[in-house]
Amino acid sequence: MVNYPEKFEAFQSPGLKNWTDFEKNAFTPRPFNEEDVDVEIECCGVCASDMHKINGDWGDCPYPLAVGHEVVGKVVRVGSKVTLAKVGQRVGVGAQVYSCLKCKQCQNDNETYCVHQIDTWGQEYLNTGHITQGGYSSHIRVHEYWVYPIPEKLQSAQAAPMLCAGITVYSPLKRFGAGPGKKVGIVGIGGLGHYGIIFAKAMGAEVWAISRSRSKEQDALKMGADGFIATSEKDWNVPHKMTFDLIVNTANATDGFDLNQYLSLLDVHGRWNSVGMPGGEGFNIRNQSFIENGCFIGSTHLGSRREMLEMLQLAADKGLQSWVEELPIGQPGLKEAMDKLKNSKARYRSCMVGYDKAFA
Amino acid sequence: MVNYPEKFEAFQSPGLKNWTDFEKNAFTPRPFNEEDVDVEIECCGVCASDMHKINGDWGDCPYPLAVGHEVVGKVVRVGSKVTLAKVGQRVGVGAQVYSCLKCKQCQNDNETYCVHQIDTWGQEYLNTGHITQGGYSSHIRVHEYWVYPIPEKLQSAQAAPMLCAGITVYSPLKRFGAGPGKKVGIVGIGGLGHYGIIFAKAMGAEVWAISRSRSKEQDALKMGADGFIATSEKDWNVPHKMTFDLIVNTANATDGFDLNQYLSLLDVHGRWNSVGMPGGEGFNIRNQSFIENGCFIGSTHLGSRREMLEMLQLAADKGLQSWVEELPIGQPGLKEAMDKLKNSKARYRSCMVGYDKAFA
Repeated sequence: MVNYPEKFEAFQSPGLKNWTDFEKNAFTPRPFNEEDVDVEIECCGVCASDMHKINGDWGDCPYPLAVGHEVVGKVVRVGSKVTLAKVGQRVGVGAQVYSCLKCKQCQNDNETYCVHQIDTWGQEYLNTGHITQGGYSSHIRVHEYWVYPIPEKLQSAQAAPMLCAGITVYSPLKRFGAGPGKKVGIVGIGGLGHYGIIFAKAMGAEVWAISRSRSKEQDALKMGADGFIATSEKDWNVPHKMTFDLIVNTANATDGFDLNQYLSLLDVHGRWNSVGMPGGEGFNIRNQSFIENGCFIGSTHLGSRREMLEMLQLAADKGLQSWVEELPIGQPGLKEAMDKLKNSKARYRSCMVGYDKAFA
Repeated sequence: MVNYPEKFEAFQSPGLKNWTDFEKNAFTPRPFNEEDVDVEIECCGVCASDMHKINGDWGDCPYPLAVGHEVVGKVVRVGSKVTLAKVGQRVGVGAQVYSCLKCKQCQNDNETYCVHQIDTWGQEYLNTGHITQGGYSSHIRVHEYWVYPIPEKLQSAQAAPMLCAGITVYSPLKRFGAGPGKKVGIVGIGGLGHYGIIFAKAMGAEVWAISRSRSKEQDALKMGADGFIATSEKDWNVPHKMTFDLIVNTANATDGFDLNQYLSLLDVHGRWNSVGMPGGEGFNIRNQSFIENGCFIGSTHLGSRREMLEMLQLAADKGLQSWVEELPIGQPGLKEAMDKLKNSKARYRSCMVGYDKAFA
């Protein structure tokens, strides 16, 4: 690591036209503050957001950009005021790296909804002029609040994808009561959905995987699902009407989705909570769509630090296993990871590894 | 009342083309059961649903039909198994007259979501062939569970509109936590909205009336609103972003509604609960609409018997005043009531009275 600490290195997407031609570049990190932690990265999960950001689905992107926001690595430097991490410790970093920590939302474990929140990649960090760079990098510099100790029992590549995919489903499951006596549905069996099944089961809920076809049924049952619903089958919703307390929708597309059929599954005031952010036009909704069971639809965004620590501990205590495919960081590996995302071929999450070689 | 008990009399809407030409007809009530109560009607509130049903907004209508489902009157007969009402007692009947009382929903104070529920008007009663007739009638026959004693302190024409308009807003306010320390918005200041302000204030919440213009501001403040927001004013939502815990939307139309602006008012996981059922196409929604505050949208349907009794007692205990205009039951009075509904001219609810003369 010849550059550190003056420079970090990263595999950056160079531009919209050739967004998968990741280039290895050095960049100057933002200034180091007293509350900052530098992490030498060991591995990083691959999230659909990474793709949406650099392929233009979400509009403008500040190229060149290193994405990746499911980071595990080793602390190599801490600021003088840091109390939450220490040098040598193995830690994680997720999809958010800043919020004000002062507002009503921040003071109520809702820092992911702080209006001052900053994403791990692609956003200016305060007024530094520096655009945040993600985890396809040699190092990352993060305020200590967004650095999470990884329990010893969790392998790094197992823990990494929990830091965005995991927390994104863990938080609504926890907040909206997944547990014993509750029937929970997970729509979409991909990176997010597989954690939905794993965590809802670990919390004690009755869990149903909901997918178009039965192609992932055996996998879903192995992950812990109590049942499987294939929405391409006739009258698929009929036996389950008004029986679900909570449905977490992880689907990454809205095409051909008849939302009313899904909502009919919910018991009174049950929630349909979407955590994917597909492009496209969205849904048409009338008040009448909700009236038969008084149900609600909405979305949640990541989860709090407190929930992150809880989730990691739960995974360690219960020996929960992420379904992860490891790929070597570098241009070919990242291209393959993006292809798997585009074609929903990851089983069920990719994690970039081999950072020691790539950034040697 | 020459006809009772063989026949009841009613002002019925005769058909779609002349839906406001209410005709006075006699009809044969359904057979009297051991759990039934006959009520001689004293007055009945006028609900937007009455209009939507007979003017074709909601599709087919079984003409001739007497609508009206905010009934107050005197018990004149009770079945042998009735324990919840007695002859001579003043009681109310709302918009629902049956549910199975056995299913999960019924056993959890959610009888308004029972799949076997029957509306007060316009639906076949079980397998009797009889289409339920509403409160623009001399009498109504109702299972005792849907008959509510009216506290002595409440005047009949004050209590009647609470039985649909009142409970429709009372229930979500209660269920979703309106009370001290909570900021509640009421969108639309009409029959439903005026109760929204009155009840949310009585529950101890900070209440804001939200309307297009300021024309109803003084009325809203008299009803108990702590503040008023006019959505036709520039940047109306900015000072209130992420501050509301709950918004009850009573608006009866969706034209020109920018839902995203309203949702920006909600604090984390706040609810936008719509209780009106406008015709029209509805809203287009994307997951992204909810992500900034993790908010939820949905609807609720009426409220349980338990909530109905609570609401009436709260109104009696606190001396809450409905804003009601009384109109004489009969063809001209009903026509005037429908005109007021169509043109949003009621201030804020109409109640048909003078039943003793009309059905003498």
